[in-house]
Amino acid sequence: MDNRPIGFLDSGVGGLTVVRELLRQLPHEEVVYIGDSARAPYGPRPAEQIEAYTWELVNFLLTKNVKMIVIACNTATAVVWEAIKEKLTIPILGVILPGSSAAIKSTKTGKIGVIGTPMTIKSDIYRQKIEMLSPDMSVTSLSCPKFAPIVESNEIRSSVAKKIVYETLSPLKGKVDTLVLGCTHYPLLSPIIQNVMGPEVKLIDSGAETVRDISVLLNYFQINRSRDVANHHQFFTTAGVASFKAIAQEWLGTDISVSHVDLEKSEENHV
Amino acid sequence: MDNRPIGFLDSGVGGLTVVRELLRQLPHEEVVYIGDSARAPYGPRPAEQIEAYTWELVNFLLTKNVKMIVIACNTATAVVWEAIKEKLTIPILGVILPGSSAAIKSTKTGKIGVIGTPMTIKSDIYRQKIEMLSPDMSVTSLSCPKFAPIVESNEIRSSVAKKIVYETLSPLKGKVDTLVLGCTHYPLLSPIIQNVMGPEVKLIDSGAETVRDISVLLNYFQINRSRDVANHHQFFTTAGVASFKAIAQEWLGTDISVSHVDLEKSEENHV
Repeated sequence: MDNRPIGFLDSGVGGLTVVRELLRQLPHEEVVYIGDSARAPYGPRPAEQIEAYTWELVNFLLTKNVKMIVIACNTATAVVWEAIKEKLTIPILGVILPGSSAAIKSTKTGKIGVIGTPMTIKSDIYRQKIEMLSPDMSVTSLSCPKFAPIVESNEIRSSVAKKIVYETLSPLKGKVDTLVLGCTHYPLLSPIIQNVMGPEVKLIDSGAETVRDISVLLNYFQINRSRDVANHHQFFTTAGVASFKAIAQEWLGTDISVSHVDLEKSEENHV
Repeated sequence: MDNRPIGFLDSGVGGLTVVRELLRQLPHEEVVYIGDSARAPYGPRPAEQIEAYTWELVNFLLTKNVKMIVIACNTATAVVWEAIKEKLTIPILGVILPGSSAAIKSTKTGKIGVIGTPMTIKSDIYRQKIEMLSPDMSVTSLSCPKFAPIVESNEIRSSVAKKIVYETLSPLKGKVDTLVLGCTHYPLLSPIIQNVMGPEVKLIDSGAETVRDISVLLNYFQINRSRDVANHHQFFTTAGVASFKAIAQEWLGTDISVSHVDLEKSEENHV
């Protein structure tokens, strides 16, 4: 047993799709979440900047006494997960290996599509991980630079969103039987994505899959939280509270408390 | 990297459903398998006997220099997984937590069915694990004493098999949206089971799910096997080679080498 919270970080609100699955699959666990919406999206930024920003988020979570950190952002996982994992003693999970393993488990034809931010797709990390695990798989990757901004601005039900998703995904139609949503923002668009790709294509939600991995490690290390301890989730954003809270409450379906955090001041407070 | 094989044990041939998924999802890894068909099924045996037999299989696998052991048998996992995990330094995986987590991830109504051997169902371990992880789930368990013997005797396509599956599962029909095949023998009967339960019920194959857990731990501990090293799987049975080989080759779809092993002599050789 370990009653400390699990820390989640993301460039913005996308990681909430992982939290939603955590609350559903592992409702005893407690969440501390930080979204760097003030600097989202990370996708188009240079690797050095993504690395520096992600470390700031990790250091913030460490001040909250977390037992595990989930990098609930594909871009940050692609750039800096391995370096962070080497430096810390608590378990650090990214979202790329869970999505890769789940895609391999799901596919029947071996033809897997991956969609993500420009940085994630440029890193080629999904192809590398999938082929490392199972070399006979054929991976087709597609950069979707407009998807995360649609979600961050809460326009997921707009006709513009439908048009962008339809146009962007058309090169993948009929080419894959499994599609990895390689950005934690994308499950918010999954009804549109499923509609474009067709019902026979299995969408891999890296959030749901990452929670399976969280569960494996909690069980393995026997650090599940006690059922008898109430949990008080905490959400932090580097941008405005109102917009984050609106998206988060709609997505999580529950009332939550959100605080603004200034990472530089936060570090001053705690270092 | 760690190029040592992964050890699998089962009361008989049921654990081959886990191996089949391993060969598909993680084709670089190498397998050492031991099936105790001479003493199968374990389900009706007393717990002390199951514990003693399982330790014999574990000790045999340890002589093969394995990097991880998978108890690919629900009955043995229910009775002795925790005790084995405490004693060994290499990772030990059972098949019950993977199936439980996957069922929680899959269900939409929260109504989960579990079928297994008399011992697994009597142990009530699936209900305990599922409710420990997610207390709002409702678990209905059903003992299927005749299923594993049908598989061990390779009668899975007989009309008797269909009749038995139909009659046994009728109390669960329409009551659950997710059904855990809580015995590694049962995926061999999954076409019949799916037919009886209906297409809308999601069957959870503990083999496929356990391989997802294997993959998580291999990645976490960075003990994947190198792609550049050829693998030579080894299969052992405590009963006759011919019958084991016939079932294994049909199920795995590949030519394999099977050896008979006498566990008492084997222990004399290695202790």
